[in-house]
Amino acid sequence: MKRTYPMLTAEEAAALVHHDEVIGFSGFTPAGAAKVIPTAIAANARIQHAAGRPFKVGVITGASTGPSLDGELANADAIKFRTPYQSNKDLRDSINAGKTHFFDMHLSLLPQYVRYGFLGELDWAIVEAADVSVDGKILLTTSVGAAPTFLTQAKRILIEVNSRHPKELLGFHDIYEPQSPPHRRPIPICNAEDRIGTQRVWVDPKKIVGIVESNREDEVKEFTPVTDITTRIGEHVAEFLAAELRNGHIPKDFLPIQSGVGNVANAVLSAMGAHPEIPRFQMYTEVIQDSVIDLIQQDRCSFVSGSSLTLSNSVLQGVYDHLESYRGRMLLRPQEITNNPEIVRRIGIISINTALEADIFGNINSTHVLGQKMMNGIGGSGDFTRNAYISIFTCPSTAKGGNISAIVPMCSHMDHSEHSVQVLVTEHGVADLRGKDPRERASAIIRNCVDPSYQDLLWTYFKLTENGHTPQSFRSAFAFHETFLQSGDMHDTKF
Amino acid sequence: MKRTYPMLTAEEAAALVHHDEVIGFSGFTPAGAAKVIPTAIAANARIQHAAGRPFKVGVITGASTGPSLDGELANADAIKFRTPYQSNKDLRDSINAGKTHFFDMHLSLLPQYVRYGFLGELDWAIVEAADVSVDGKILLTTSVGAAPTFLTQAKRILIEVNSRHPKELLGFHDIYEPQSPPHRRPIPICNAEDRIGTQRVWVDPKKIVGIVESNREDEVKEFTPVTDITTRIGEHVAEFLAAELRNGHIPKDFLPIQSGVGNVANAVLSAMGAHPEIPRFQMYTEVIQDSVIDLIQQDRCSFVSGSSLTLSNSVLQGVYDHLESYRGRMLLRPQEITNNPEIVRRIGIISINTALEADIFGNINSTHVLGQKMMNGIGGSGDFTRNAYISIFTCPSTAKGGNISAIVPMCSHMDHSEHSVQVLVTEHGVADLRGKDPRERASAIIRNCVDPSYQDLLWTYFKLTENGHTPQSFRSAFAFHETFLQSGDMHDTKF
Repeated sequence: MKRTYPMLTAEEAAALVHHDEVIGFSGFTPAGAAKVIPTAIAANARIQHAAGRPFKVGVITGASTGPSLDGELANADAIKFRTPYQSNKDLRDSINAGKTHFFDMHLSLLPQYVRYGFLGELDWAIVEAADVSVDGKILLTTSVGAAPTFLTQAKRILIEVNSRHPKELLGFHDIYEPQSPPHRRPIPICNAEDRIGTQRVWVDPKKIVGIVESNREDEVKEFTPVTDITTRIGEHVAEFLAAELRNGHIPKDFLPIQSGVGNVANAVLSAMGAHPEIPRFQMYTEVIQDSVIDLIQQDRCSFVSGSSLTLSNSVLQGVYDHLESYRGRMLLRPQEITNNPEIVRRIGIISINTALEADIFGNINSTHVLGQKMMNGIGGSGDFTRNAYISIFTCPSTAKGGNISAIVPMCSHMDHSEHSVQVLVTEHGVADLRGKDPRERASAIIRNCVDPSYQDLLWTYFKLTENGHTPQSFRSAFAFHETFLQSGDMHDTKF
Repeated sequence: MKRTYPMLTAEEAAALVHHDEVIGFSGFTPAGAAKVIPTAIAANARIQHAAGRPFKVGVITGASTGPSLDGELANADAIKFRTPYQSNKDLRDSINAGKTHFFDMHLSLLPQYVRYGFLGELDWAIVEAADVSVDGKILLTTSVGAAPTFLTQAKRILIEVNSRHPKELLGFHDIYEPQSPPHRRPIPICNAEDRIGTQRVWVDPKKIVGIVESNREDEVKEFTPVTDITTRIGEHVAEFLAAELRNGHIPKDFLPIQSGVGNVANAVLSAMGAHPEIPRFQMYTEVIQDSVIDLIQQDRCSFVSGSSLTLSNSVLQGVYDHLESYRGRMLLRPQEITNNPEIVRRIGIISINTALEADIFGNINSTHVLGQKMMNGIGGSGDFTRNAYISIFTCPSTAKGGNISAIVPMCSHMDHSEHSVQVLVTEHGVADLRGKDPRERASAIIRNCVDPSYQDLLWTYFKLTENGHTPQSFRSAFAFHETFLQSGDMHDTKF
């Protein structure tokens, strides 16, 4: 089947890409990311740079990718601009040094930004696939992300056909792309498991200029294990949700769960799975992590809809070894659908996301370390939290061995305002912010969530500033941060 | 017809309401707000207080109301808590003095918060109506807001039947309440003019404990006239939109407009109406102001959907005098529908809202004067901007005769993060922030939007802090605000 398309080496494919072009790469997390072609583009960039020629490309993806895409291109100084999300150390360094323009955006918006032309023309879609038919039907691998939009919008297409992924993945994807206004219709998902699209992405086969063979593994990092602190956060979340079930705020059959990425998210899912009062539940989330596979195997999660299977290699192999047992229990969708405000609000998602920093009024910093340095990006957190049935943010109450309080007088950067944050949870407890004014929120957060060693300091700040609807002091709002920069310990703060 | 319900005086109705009860009042802006009963409740509160008895009630509305509701109850110190929005001076003073708990929330969320029980039980719905049938069908007046939810959720109902509003309003409302998850279905609006509900609110007539007659006018304030500055802001917005039409970013038939409330919004609508390249357009907005009626009369606006007819008394009388000519050209909907993220995103609204303060990175303060004092609330701005096709914020570049720059190093309070702000417009020009990283955004905003007298200061701040993805200085972020508090003029800022 594939013989009708030119078979290229990665180097031949990379040579087709020119300076200043804009590329949409597959990948939503390292899962399903293009690998061999971007690495070859980076190698070509180094050759061009050595010859004194400029070579930088615009890099658009679904979300983060792996070292062979973001890492290689950043190291080769080959990225002109990058959107919408990243999590690669080398790329992050380049962004924070002001060398790479990074446009941090809500993941649900990326595909429509591309369609509307807000990011300019897309020269290339470079996409990993498990299979391609002669008539241009592309079977994606472990993620969907924004690949369907890149494939339909790009002028030309290069495909990495990765033999590591079985063709039996056919049926695990649900490809649907909304029309642009004024022609858009309701997205007909009323339940996490509703199937609304095609199994493959359909493109004009004439746009496919070549295929490169690959058998590279996804570059998913193993998460560090659950700790005492993350376990306690997980237990608080599970107990809060059980109490909401008891008091009738959550319907008896429960509601679909969205859970962020990382160790705290793993601990939360594990605690929910273990809680006797929480019924078997569905997930409508972004990233399907190892812990979700555990829940499916335990039959605690009845169905998961996501945009990527971000699994460690051994867990992914386990899924592939028993693929038929997962059929009908999971679906991979475009990020425009997994994260869509319309669906999130309609089906009543309970969202659980991690904060980098929170303030005593319930505002959240998801992106910037000490206000300046980009960590990864806002990702899907805004898509979910703004529209959730109940929006929960979690974080350990301290960092750096206790020298940083994750809860401060004022966030050093703000991504989610108080209006999108309904519950804050640390290892110390739960602050339910619904219906509370800023002073009441501050009291609940300091009392229930702040580490005891920082409570007096935060009460001092709060009392110092007590006037107006939202008490604050311009002089002292960042005293915690300034003290940390000076002494290395926020405990040394003096107001 | 009305004779089947007990006819009460306002005082008799007010006497039914007890201390500590929670009331949902009609009103979205002063339009359609309950008037005679809340004033009588305030009078009763004063009597109770004079007798040494406690008397405070929880006050939930659609949005702001008029002096006879928020003003009277605040002056009588009779409000236990208030949500979701207000714009009354006396109530604002009480909130900022910490005497009234005010929960500032996205207006689209209020009805579902009430239904989900997140705000506790609703003892009363007190609603203005143009008519009530014996079988419990209530014809609302100049607003819908959250009245349908209050009527269906409250234990008991009191109705002010206001003879000032004609019964021929039947057909101008479209009442639709979504089901709660997991039973919610798509809201079937694909076009601003789609009708999806009933003409009246249907309630169990047994819940209606009494009717009070009224003929009080809506207490809508006249807006101050358009100025040179607001005219220029309007022209910049209109020209930006015309350019987006020309370059194909906006479809040829245009997209529905959402416009905030106030003088800048009036100027923007006026400029759009006058621009030769902007076609006749629809509006899908929250508040229908006088300027929208002008556009309808000029046939520049072909249809308007909103939650309230917030018209000055003379303009409202003009509409009533020719009501049939407006039939089929306007529709009043619940705020949960006018502001619904699902619809906003689907139909591709162009949102135009006013900022109180912006920062050089494109973050917006919509609510807090100098970070502490609540002005009105976030209102619907978050509902629209987050989901808009293009989200525009406008503001005059300075305030207080130039002593305040509306654009500062860091917002003193943040309601809308950079992620929800695509275009910033002042009288000086337009900053298009799409696809730009924080440094690029700062350059565009300082160059195009900041008042020339503040440009050097903001460049100094920007250069002072140039490291990281989002340059900022903890020490100087609020230097503008601190200087203003000290000298009364932000121009005196020293970094």
